[in-house]
Formats: sequence, C-alpha cells, structure tokens
Amino acid sequence: MNLNARFQALLADMKLEGRYRTFIELERLAGAFPAALWRAQDGLRRHVTVWCSNDYLGMGQNPDVLAAMHQSLDFSGAGTGGTRNISGTNRQHVALEAALADLHDKESALIFTSGWISNLAALGTLGRALPGCAIFSDALNHNSMIEGIRRSGAERFIFRHNDVAHLDELMGQVAPDRPKIVAFESVYSMDGDVAPIAAICDVAEKHGAITYLDEVHAVGLYGARGGGVAERDGVAHRVTLIEGTLAKAFGVMGGYVAGPALMMDVIRSMADSFIFTTSLCPHLAAGALAAVNHVATHPEERAALARNVETLRGMLLAAGIPVMDSASHILPVLVGDAHLCKRTSDLLLQEHDIYVQPVNYPTVPRGTERLRITTTPFHTQEHMRALVYALRTVGRQLGWVEQRAA
Amino acid sequence: MNLNARFQALLADMKLEGRYRTFIELERLAGAFPAALWRAQDGLRRHVTVWCSNDYLGMGQNPDVLAAMHQSLDFSGAGTGGTRNISGTNRQHVALEAALADLHDKESALIFTSGWISNLAALGTLGRALPGCAIFSDALNHNSMIEGIRRSGAERFIFRHNDVAHLDELMGQVAPDRPKIVAFESVYSMDGDVAPIAAICDVAEKHGAITYLDEVHAVGLYGARGGGVAERDGVAHRVTLIEGTLAKAFGVMGGYVAGPALMMDVIRSMADSFIFTTSLCPHLAAGALAAVNHVATHPEERAALARNVETLRGMLLAAGIPVMDSASHILPVLVGDAHLCKRTSDLLLQEHDIYVQPVNYPTVPRGTERLRITTTPFHTQEHMRALVYALRTVGRQLGWVEQRAA
Ligand SMILES: Cc1ncc(COP(=O)(O)O)c(C=O)c1O
Ligand SMILES: Cc1ncc(COP(=O)(O)O)c(C=O)c1O
Repeated sequence: MNLNARFQALLADMKLEGRYRTFIELERLAGAFPAALWRAQDGLRRHVTVWCSNDYLGMGQNPDVLAAMHQSLDFSGAGTGGTRNISGTNRQHVALEAALADLHDKESALIFTSGWISNLAALGTLGRALPGCAIFSDALNHNSMIEGIRRSGAERFIFRHNDVAHLDELMGQVAPDRPKIVAFESVYSMDGDVAPIAAICDVAEKHGAITYLDEVHAVGLYGARGGGVAERDGVAHRVTLIEGTLAKAFGVMGGYVAGPALMMDVIRSMADSFIFTTSLCPHLAAGALAAVNHVATHPEERAALARNVETLRGMLLAAGIPVMDSASHILPVLVGDAHLCKRTSDLLLQEHDIYVQPVNYPTVPRGTERLRITTTPFHTQEHMRALVYALRTVGRQLGWVEQRAA
Repeated sequence: MNLNARFQALLADMKLEGRYRTFIELERLAGAFPAALWRAQDGLRRHVTVWCSNDYLGMGQNPDVLAAMHQSLDFSGAGTGGTRNISGTNRQHVALEAALADLHDKESALIFTSGWISNLAALGTLGRALPGCAIFSDALNHNSMIEGIRRSGAERFIFRHNDVAHLDELMGQVAPDRPKIVAFESVYSMDGDVAPIAAICDVAEKHGAITYLDEVHAVGLYGARGGGVAERDGVAHRVTLIEGTLAKAFGVMGGYVAGPALMMDVIRSMADSFIFTTSLCPHLAAGALAAVNHVATHPEERAALARNVETLRGMLLAAGIPVMDSASHILPVLVGDAHLCKRTSDLLLQEHDIYVQPVNYPTVPRGTERLRITTTPFHTQEHMRALVYALRTVGRQLGWVEQRAA
C-alpha cells in the first residue's frame, strides 16, 4: 500500500467537505481580553475581538489566579517530575482536590491533566470494574465520554438527547441486577441546551443506577458558589459523580471528578490514564484553586455574564441573525453549510477584526454548521454592536441572513 | 449487585497484594531540589531528599524556564480557553512545535497535553487511518503506547523485548502489502536498558514499515542537542516518528510527536484526544521552549548527570546493593517482593529522610519489585553517601542486602 497516497486522500476528503481545519494563530493579551493579537497569513499581527473563547469569565487573566500561579512557580518550580504515585503528589494537588470535593458537596475529588482525561479515566474505569455493567449515554455526549465508555468495554445504550422517557424505556430492558451508569452533560456545549437533571436522577434512582454528570460548560457559571447546574437546581446530592474542567470558566487547565470516596479510590487506583502520566504542575493547581475560590465568592461576575448573554441574544435576534434556541450562556448562530460557515468566519476576521471559529461536521451534524458565539463579562456594548453589525453585513453578503430594511 | 461491595473487594485485593498505592505528599522547593518538604501522617513537614524524580536535569527549577513562564503568564495569562481549533492556538504553541521539529530533524511536530496523550493520539490515529494496518509492539512498551495501539483497532503483534530477530520473524508472517508500524522505546524506564534502534530500523525498512519511537526518558538527556538516543546514535533520520515528553528532562508538562508533515497533519486532523480538549497553557509552551533551548546549549549538564550516574552506580555496587544492569541514567535496585519494597521505602522516609517510591506490580512483573533510583546534576556526593548508607542499613534490616563486613 502507498501510505502517503492514503494519507493524502484522507486529507483531501476533509478539504472537499470543508472540514479541514486551519488553526488561527493568536496571542492572548492578559488584561486586554477579549482582545487578542491575530497573526495573519502575511505574518503581520492585528488586534481582534475574540467571540469564541471558553474562558467564560475571563479567569485566564484574573489577578488572583495569576498571582497564585506566580507565587507557586517561585516556590515550587515548574513541573512535578513524577506521576501522582512517584514523587508527583504535591500540597497544591491535595488542596485543590479538597476544594473541589467541597464545591460539589462530595466526599472526595481527583484531578487529571484535562477534562478529556477525566471522562476517559472515570467512565473507562467504573464500567470496567463492574462486571456486566450497562452504560446509558445521552446521544449528544462529548467525545471524551464516548471514548471512556468505549474504553470500559461495558455495553452501551444511547438514549435520545435529553429524552427521559427513552432513558427509562432502555433501562427497563436491562436486567435489574446488572450494574448501571447513566452518563450525561448539564450544558451541551454546541447547542447550549440544558439537561433535566432531576428527571434523569428520578429514572436512574428507580433503576438503581450510578449517575455521572459532565458539568464542563457549567462549573463556575451556575449555582450559588459556581458548582454548576446541579447546584443551581438543588440536585447535586442526587448525582453520584460530577465531572468538570479547570480549563474553561476556571481559566487554567486540567480536569476533575468528584464523588463518593470509595469510587474515587477505585478510579485513583485503576485508571491507566491517571496512573501512567506526569501529574499537573503544582502552580496550575494553585491557580485553579484561586479561581475556584474567586468564583465562589464573586457571584456578581456570573450575573454580569448572564446579563451580557441576554443583551446579546436580544441584539442578535433583533438584527435577524438566526440564533438557535439555547438555555445557557452559549449562543449558536446557524449557518447550515460548511463552506459558508468557514467563509463567514474568514470574512469576519479579515474585514471586521472579529474572531469566531466555524463549527462544522463532525463536531456538529451536517446541515447544522454554525458559529458558536460566547460572550464574557469583559465584552462591552460596543463589542456587541460591532459583532452584530459584522454578522449582519457578512451574513447578507453570503446570503444566510435575510436582506431587509435594517 | 452490591456495587460498594464490589469496589471494596477490588481495593482489598490490591492491599493484600501490596499494590495499593498511598501517595506521598510533597512540596517541591524551587532552588533547593532535590530537597523537598514531606508532609508526614502527623501533619508535620520535614525536609527529605528526593531520589525518584524524573525531573532528571532539575529543569523544573531552572531560572531560564521559570523566567519564560513568568513572562508569558504576565503577557498572555493562564489558560487558552479553547481547543487548538477554537481560539486555542497561540504563538507559544507554534514556536515550540517549530523548535521540537528542529530538535529531531523532522518536518513537523505537534504538542499534546501529555506524553500519555501523544502516544494515544498518534498510534491510535495512524493505526486507524491505515486499513489492514499491523502494529509491532515491544513487549515492554509503556501503557500509553499499548492504549494507543488498542484504540487504533489495528492488529497487534508483540515482539520479545528488544529482540530484533523475533521482530523480523513476526513481520515476515504478515502480508508484504499491509501497512506496518513498529512501536518501541529508546530508554525503558523501569529497567533502564536501551533499544537497538539501528537494528530495529534495519528490520523495519526491510519490511517497509513506519517506525515509531518513544524517547520520553531520553529527550534532553542524550545526543548533542538533547534530541535523545536516536540523535546520539546518529539514526534519528531513520526513525519515522519520534515521541517525547515536556514533563521529565524538560521539567514542565505536555508531550509531543515529531515526524513527516503529512503524517503529522493526519494526526492533527483526526485524533480525538487532540481535537476535543483545551490546548496547553501558553506559558507551559513558553517554559518548555526555554527548556529545549537551554538543554541544547548546555551539554555540560547532561555530562554532569552521566558522571553522577556512574559515581552512584559504583558506590551502590561497592556497598553490595543489588543494582540491576542498566545502560542509562536509571538505576533500579532489586528488592523482589512487594511488601518488602514498600516497607523499605517507608523506613527510608521515616528514619533516613530519603524518598524513593517502591515500584510494584503491575508497573513491573511480580518478583521484580524494585526501587527505581534517579540522580540529577543537583545530587551531591554527600547526598549519595547518605543514600547508600540508608539503603544498606534498611536493606540489611529487612534482609534483602547481605550482611557482611562493610
Ligand atoms: C462536554 C465536554 N466535556 C469534556 C471536555 C474536555 O475538557 P478539557 O478541555 O478540559 O479537556 C469538553 C471540551 O473540551 C467538553 O465540551
Ligand atoms: C515510556 C513512557 N512514555 C510515555 C509516558 C507518558 O508521558 P507523560 O508523563 O508526559 O504523560 C511515560 C511516563 O509518564 C513513559 O514512561
């Protein structure tokens, strides 16, 4: 076989379908967010406004977070030089794990190098540790959960997105004495809709199942202390395990799972992707701890984000921009074609100094290609007006926003 | 099924076999490495000497590295807030990838959140992208390569450790036109032995295979610029893909793969574990770049490490300590029993202020439980004398070092 021809064909297919990705090179500017420098093809750098970051609260430039990181870097240095078991457990990890367990009102928490690994490790281990396990997975679950379930070797049942009746029906078909896990998200990142957590817990409890909730796009943003949608809805105690990231609303990187001490100990003791890798740098754990504490004590920043979301949603709708229905801070704008979506993003960047990455298949289904817009407390009314003007201009130019009297 | 009983039984088994892990809580002290603070059961902190870190050159406290990280934190903030494709590619990533490609004399390089993910992503993707692919894997390959090969779905052939004839024999049994990958390491981390890279390349070339070399325990330590054993042996150009970590000799965290541009583009475009996760913090990339540059221009630090390794090896052997045969900087001391190994480590810590983690099954085969000792340019003769004294004392006390006139 001609290997190079095979590789070339794979990439050519992606290009044809408009799903070949070209990375936009940025330089983030602490203190100036959502402004960043963009390095264009000609090598020149230009200021742009970022409208697609998951640094939802701008914690990546938060002075408390940066101070904690600088201090820990000075005190403890850069890497740990070891896996958690071999010289890689540090005071900063232990302190962060205690704070995360407390945030979610769970007995114990474990941190990982990313949210992606958290899901792979936790679902992969629990499903494997329980013989005959059946995992019930929401149809729109994130890739990392799907990989974890696959890795577990457990039998997988996919229930229709947020469809509690379908979940109940599927669970009823599995022998009552088999171990069961229901895996789902609170905020679905590409549509911005929210799971009916209480209703899912009702069904799970009826069938004696463990519940596993990915709150990656919700931690830091919902609930009195930023514990997520489960905290906001008062149902955190009904969810067995809550998974989150340190890389979005908390502004750093890394992921975690919080839950009963016994299950956390099983994951800690058996998950390959936790055991056989260098632990998170201590100063990242210190920064994340500062972020968790800052967020818990500054509900006004969550409120400012929520206000900005509603303001922007209203402005987009008023301008005839097709914002998809969303029950969260995520505002997806439907374009509906891969090439058009990419072209829109290119024009926004080149002609309007606005950066929104196109989201195409396989991240979203074909025909629903979109711009996934996120605002933060740092986006001003002026930023919003510029965005709406640019979207309307480019959308009309390319024909996916209706021409009409403005 | 009583789930808790099942979880308890799993943990009880581990405890019985002496492979339940208790993490030692440290506080690293930048500038004082290999000293660190250890938090004992009583909550008090004591200074200990660390003898099991993979921060082989002490780059975790290197002033160039820390300065680069501080500066980048100030300029760009903490996290990127995005995946590589969605606002998460920064100047620092691009610069580091260019430097790593250059270090290994490859067309292109790609960074990941860890070395573990590098192997999962690269092997998982290449094996899957090539229909009918056969992957030939050294029997002692690291867990992350095994997981990548498993994820790829490719047929796997395991050749006896470092056994080139056996590799040739296995490859001869597979149809010539099937795509083939040979996956192996340069320095094997638990035994410290080194692969015959040139001979493996001979066989791979004969069968038209891609070669994939994990240099995680060699980058920064061998070769004129710290490019690893392949550079030292003058065979880097014969290896298709070289994988490394930023978390050991380079002192930070993250991993990477370097290779032909076309293959790297396939991995970049298709690897789930690369696509669906927040990118590495820019300041980690900046720190790693400083480390790569520092290491390339300071061969004297590699030489100092090599001298310390030989000094310590000689001292251990002279004292009758059973150091296993090793061709690298890793000095494994054979204890041969899980409980004895753990007990030795406990006594070293409690009575001698020396920290070496026991390495038990499943990381090494049963009956070969060991203390895996690593030195650095920062370990002094005095540190070494204290280590040898403590090992001899505890080893005699527990019966795994022979009693004799000292
Ligand atoms: C729902 C969901 N879970 C998990 C992850 C992975 O988190 P991380 O970026 O920390 O790897 C993501 C996105 O990155 C996500 O959208
Ligand atoms: C041979 C080998 N490959 C890969 C890894 C993973 O690297 P990282 O610690 O950067 O995840 C390790 C150890 O951690 C290793 O020993």
